[in-house]
Amino acid sequence: MDGAPEFPFELPVDGVASQAAEAGPGMAVSDPASSEVPSLIDHTLLRPEATRSEIAQLCDEALRYGFFAVCVAPVWVAEAAARLNGSPVRVATVVGFPLGASMTPVKRLETELALRCGAQEIDMVVDLGALKAGDGARVHNDILGVVELASAGGALTKVILETGLLSDEQKRMGAELAVRAGAAFVKTSTGFSHQGATGSDVTLLRRAVGSHAGVKAAGGIRSYSDLLAMVRAGANRIGTSAGVSIVEQARGSRQ
Amino acid sequence: MDGAPEFPFELPVDGVASQAAEAGPGMAVSDPASSEVPSLIDHTLLRPEATRSEIAQLCDEALRYGFFAVCVAPVWVAEAAARLNGSPVRVATVVGFPLGASMTPVKRLETELALRCGAQEIDMVVDLGALKAGDGARVHNDILGVVELASAGGALTKVILETGLLSDEQKRMGAELAVRAGAAFVKTSTGFSHQGATGSDVTLLRRAVGSHAGVKAAGGIRSYSDLLAMVRAGANRIGTSAGVSIVEQARGSRQ
Repeated sequence: MDGAPEFPFELPVDGVASQAAEAGPGMAVSDPASSEVPSLIDHTLLRPEATRSEIAQLCDEALRYGFFAVCVAPVWVAEAAARLNGSPVRVATVVGFPLGASMTPVKRLETELALRCGAQEIDMVVDLGALKAGDGARVHNDILGVVELASAGGALTKVILETGLLSDEQKRMGAELAVRAGAAFVKTSTGFSHQGATGSDVTLLRRAVGSHAGVKAAGGIRSYSDLLAMVRAGANRIGTSAGVSIVEQARGSRQ
Repeated sequence: MDGAPEFPFELPVDGVASQAAEAGPGMAVSDPASSEVPSLIDHTLLRPEATRSEIAQLCDEALRYGFFAVCVAPVWVAEAAARLNGSPVRVATVVGFPLGASMTPVKRLETELALRCGAQEIDMVVDLGALKAGDGARVHNDILGVVELASAGGALTKVILETGLLSDEQKRMGAELAVRAGAAFVKTSTGFSHQGATGSDVTLLRRAVGSHAGVKAAGGIRSYSDLLAMVRAGANRIGTSAGVSIVEQARGSRQ
């Protein structure tokens, strides 16, 4: 982690093993084959007005196309888990989403309930106010509170930094704190702020976490060329609601 | 409540008194005097990147101008309550915000913690998926779960419907369910969706709740004329981050 800033606080001992080993491959060395594209994608539907039939369709598409996971709001986890039961498609959900400004015990309860309903991946939003204030201990403890529960339940944690609202130094600090707290992934964006993933942010995050965590790019990724740009920048997971169209484009393109 | 739809489900007995009596005046009969404008305003700062000094400034402006309340994210409630301690300015916060798609126990814990930190008003987002699906029992129980705790803690509940995502029938149903669950206010919008408050939605909500609840207009209210339009349409509380500028405009205008 060359160039990572030194933090002016003592980190508590984590007490949980890092989830990095489960985060899959690090920096991609070449473009994915079109057949590998679906396995990079968290097929995502987080619009608050989503209906039961749209959630069912999302799950069915994930089965048909072989997406890595679906990502749905907490109220839909049980439904998605039931529909995907016995399949390799994982169920991801969100915690403290999309503002990150809920208290740690609330994020923990959200995690606990999500696990109980069948979630296998927890995409949590960092405490943005604390991160922007440089309060690393508070950010760390907030992440750790979720990672502990997720790990105990066999689930991965991704830490959403909302990079569009952060300085480069804050992005690096957030990424480093996520790794130290044992998160499996850092993730660029919620898709609900003014800016989504950018290639330069993915590169920055990959440099910050090295091979210690995965990097998920999310927010505004609408096409196969968007996906390729993110993978080339260092992402090994892609959150998008345009997965079906992206996979069709990948199949239609020359490899 | 003329014209309100009949619901095809049995409502549980609430067990809590309606908060309507505390909701203040119903439909406005005339324009507010400029001196009354501040007392209509929830002075609001919910941007996720808000800093401690911005929260302090918000509270100080509320004291100086005499706003009814400040509205801040859960992580800032304790800070705001301490700064406003002993003043008439109330502290409001948000629950299930801004998507409404968290589980009822999570909304309840958020409420509980907010009350413990000093919140006196709880602006909760309705379960939009359930409302759009017409699942009135689920919507009702979700609201009631928050109202019960808020009432026990002496706090008011406002139910945010996010009208920009609803049909007129869904808006009326949401408003009616909020009243039946004992909420003090219905509120148009979070300010985080594609559409904020509109005059026609405020009129619709006021007709739906009559004098049984207040109507809070929020989202996109930037000027004194915006505020007047909302009050004329039937709002008796205004959520805005432009309160200072609105009050200055009101003072500068002829009454």
